Amino acid sequence: MAQQPFSILTVGSLAFDSIQTPAGKADLVLGGSGNYFSIAASFYASVEVVGVVGEDFPKSHLQWLSERKIDVSGIQVVPGKTFHWVGSYDQDLNEAKTLSTALNVFEQFNPQLNSKHRVAPYVFLANIDPVLQMRVLDQVDSPRLVACDSMNFWITGKPNELKETLRRVDILSLNQGEAFLLSGEKNILRAAEKIQKMGPSVLMIKRGEYGAMMFTPTGVFIAPAFPVNTVVDPTGAGDSFAGAMMGYLAEAGIDREWAKSHPEKFDQILRRAVLAGCVMASFTVEDFSFQRLMRLNKSELVTRQKTLVQMLQI
Amino acid sequence: MAQQPFSILTVGSLAFDSIQTPAGKADLVLGGSGNYFSIAASFYASVEVVGVVGEDFPKSHLQWLSERKIDVSGIQVVPGKTFHWVGSYDQDLNEAKTLSTALNVFEQFNPQLNSKHRVAPYVFLANIDPVLQMRVLDQVDSPRLVACDSMNFWITGKPNELKETLRRVDILSLNQGEAFLLSGEKNILRAAEKIQKMGPSVLMIKRGEYGAMMFTPTGVFIAPAFPVNTVVDPTGAGDSFAGAMMGYLAEAGIDREWAKSHPEKFDQILRRAVLAGCVMASFTVEDFSFQRLMRLNKSELVTRQKTLVQMLQI
Repeated sequence: MAQQPFSILTVGSLAFDSIQTPAGKADLVLGGSGNYFSIAASFYASVEVVGVVGEDFPKSHLQWLSERKIDVSGIQVVPGKTFHWVGSYDQDLNEAKTLSTALNVFEQFNPQLNSKHRVAPYVFLANIDPVLQMRVLDQVDSPRLVACDSMNFWITGKPNELKETLRRVDILSLNQGEAFLLSGEKNILRAAEKIQKMGPSVLMIKRGEYGAMMFTPTGVFIAPAFPVNTVVDPTGAGDSFAGAMMGYLAEAGIDREWAKSHPEKFDQILRRAVLAGCVMASFTVEDFSFQRLMRLNKSELVTRQKTLVQMLQI
Repeated sequence: MAQQPFSILTVGSLAFDSIQTPAGKADLVLGGSGNYFSIAASFYASVEVVGVVGEDFPKSHLQWLSERKIDVSGIQVVPGKTFHWVGSYDQDLNEAKTLSTALNVFEQFNPQLNSKHRVAPYVFLANIDPVLQMRVLDQVDSPRLVACDSMNFWITGKPNELKETLRRVDILSLNQGEAFLLSGEKNILRAAEKIQKMGPSVLMIKRGEYGAMMFTPTGVFIAPAFPVNTVVDPTGAGDSFAGAMMGYLAEAGIDREWAKSHPEKFDQILRRAVLAGCVMASFTVEDFSFQRLMRLNKSELVTRQKTLVQMLQI
């Protein structure tokens, strides 16, 4: 089947979130890694989302995604309720506290890829059960580049399955605490060294308000977060970081083989991709849910990326 | 009196520290902001230290400082015991916990500048009582550039005196929590804006393992910390950051009037100065006390600074 260039397949959650932050409260707003990732990535590339929602999920939102050229044919609508996450943040906005998680229809989720999804050149496995992540990888033909995310829950609960997934992944994105947990190290350099040996040649360590650190085969890049005036809600910052980062790589047409034979050039493109991620995340946190991303335009992205580059220029 | 070019006068503490960190324990080792600052600055400029020690302070260390061309004629040796700080760090190495402070001879400290000190072109007021900081400023003739540090204790305890000092300061160096406390803001941009209005046109906000953020009249610079394999003891990182930063500015011969008329060039030089500070701090934390700085050579500094620049290159 004919495949759009630069197309990214992602598998992740579509959810309702109820969130309390120092800036206020939002009840039953739209969320989920699949949403944040795909909206962010859609500024750069076409996106296909695979996921599951209940009958209570607003059709208008699926419609809105479609209008952005996000392919929602992989989102199953099944009887029952949509995944619901309740969380809060205290003054330290870098860490979410989960108050409750109702998996609902997500509990029986078994990603089934259609013929179009199977030929996706770029794949992003959002933070879900590593067994499901592998099941997705088993169904895709021969992606050019695979990235993935995970979290403490899987690192602790399914370490072997996660490590099996990691062997098939090019880029892993984790926050600092997760990287320490996965590696058993408390130092970021030693943690990165161990994790890169598990499979992903590129490791992105997210550090909340401090930005991100990237380890590639040729070097280390330390990207600052773009400082914003008011952080309303950090939810989805990591997924929208990954969305912009993958979108940037897909737009550049990177593939694994080229990356291996051009490690220095790959490193340079990755640096820009990481900054794109930091910029996207900075917009995400300016409002609840992905409301800021929904009214964001590309020229705002470009302007902020230029400003961020100035902030690290020597 | 003839004055060396690039000479920096600093007033601060010379102390014994007893420290516990996750890496180990050090009892009654040499410390104090005056020590850390002047050793770090001496890689770039000549330094004059004003401070006080008790009769228990090792003469061999004063001798060692002198051999590094650090002028110790402003260090009074008085009857009694040297200032003693007892502190510890848990896994979060970014914040020290003070277990006890014995001011000892420091309690009666009244800085008296000799004729040589009075004509110092560069002044760094380390973290001491803002009343003493002002007393030093009252005694210097017309410095080219004045920088200062402070802490929660003075921000809360002597806010008016501190604000009076700040009106006479060009560069203020604080950590993030202190900047929030001083400004009454919880956001770094709003905090910086308020603090810059208090006097210092340049504000450096230290962020521990995440580096430093600098606000100048023309922009924002976000400098990463240099990541090291093992952090042994973070004590003195901030003072050695300030030492290298001021040393770099003194070596460059910057003065306030030139800075005002060349804001863009000043900003560029400051960025390099901040990186020099980050690099120096990264050596400091590799061992207890300033032991790593005592065996550091300039070529190690240059090499690490180059590596750090690569880590933020776009």
